[in-house]
Amino acid sequence: MRNSYHDDLNDVVDDLVRMAGLVRTSVSTGTRALLEADIRSAEQVISEDESIDEAHNDIESRCFSLLARQAPIASDLRTVVSALRMVTAMERMGDLAAHVAKIARMRFPERAVPDDLQPNFERMAKLADQMIAKAGDTLRTRDVAVAAELATIDEEMDELRRDQFRTLLNDDWAHGVEAAVDVALLGRYYERIADHAVSLGRRVAFVVTGEKDDRATWSSS
Amino acid sequence: MRNSYHDDLNDVVDDLVRMAGLVRTSVSTGTRALLEADIRSAEQVISEDESIDEAHNDIESRCFSLLARQAPIASDLRTVVSALRMVTAMERMGDLAAHVAKIARMRFPERAVPDDLQPNFERMAKLADQMIAKAGDTLRTRDVAVAAELATIDEEMDELRRDQFRTLLNDDWAHGVEAAVDVALLGRYYERIADHAVSLGRRVAFVVTGEKDDRATWSSS
Repeated sequence: MRNSYHDDLNDVVDDLVRMAGLVRTSVSTGTRALLEADIRSAEQVISEDESIDEAHNDIESRCFSLLARQAPIASDLRTVVSALRMVTAMERMGDLAAHVAKIARMRFPERAVPDDLQPNFERMAKLADQMIAKAGDTLRTRDVAVAAELATIDEEMDELRRDQFRTLLNDDWAHGVEAAVDVALLGRYYERIADHAVSLGRRVAFVVTGEKDDRATWSSS
Repeated sequence: MRNSYHDDLNDVVDDLVRMAGLVRTSVSTGTRALLEADIRSAEQVISEDESIDEAHNDIESRCFSLLARQAPIASDLRTVVSALRMVTAMERMGDLAAHVAKIARMRFPERAVPDDLQPNFERMAKLADQMIAKAGDTLRTRDVAVAAELATIDEEMDELRRDQFRTLLNDDWAHGVEAAVDVALLGRYYERIADHAVSLGRRVAFVVTGEKDDRATWSSS
């Protein structure tokens, strides 16, 4: 016999994992658009943001209906409420990838990021990719240790952002105001993507343990 | 006889209204810090961000406990789920006000915003203040027309941000890279505060009507 309630709940979690995959693709394609001035990648991320929004709306409705029909308790309730939060965080990550792609498109055929900052952004993008992959995995495995790993990677992310500021506020900066503004905003977008990944990890830990991590503000969505 | 469940729900809504008041004060104090290079206001916003985070955690726990103990349905369920979303949006608005204050503090005793952009930021801040006030009112009055008003004000906000970019990317820009970066990030912070206010209005409309506004992405938190 099919236990429809738990099946529905498991389906929601599976779809969150799939949505994390969509977001990961969007961010990595957005990064390619940015670092290689690849206009087709940029267009792709911008147009596919709609499918992330659709996944968001679909999962949100199903969570809502689970709450309305099933009145889940304890760990199931935590799962549904956290799913509502996670789906919002992922939708935002998709938006941020689209913001990156839009800057790439605006500067095409030039590259928005000056050569001397390319390695910094490559590293940022690589960390963001790792973080989204880990956040997606932990949704599936419910391995709470990942929440701490994500916070550690996020520290390197913050350090990279400080490096960006040091570079662009240095007297040597020779790329003008437009590139500086692009770099400042792009850095902000990657930083926020990473914050959302950290928040996904914390929510999984909350689902599993029932305890919030109060060392940091819980909601960075 | 006290109907404890509805009393609890009403208390949550009252506290959301109060939290909107805290956020409004934070944003307006952050603006004063920014436009008048007022270091005491800056410190105040940064240190009081903690009380917004506490309000967030408190309201979130109570929503969670309402879901767990009462299994609300229909409009009550929409209220609780929306409250969970709204409290997150407001916590983010508080963070953004603190980001504004931190830039003000970093540039003190100078002003971060160059003279020729002061009127633009004054207007942005005024609109943000109106939007938060309206979002707080609509939580109390449940007047769904406000959602549309907020979207209209947000269009002027977006236009002001475009004006900022035109100013700082103009060949005449004489304030250097640091001021340009500050302006780009500050503009982004006010824009996001406004987005969150729009999203608060939409959630109230959803609580009242049960229908989502699909003209725009639902979750901008």
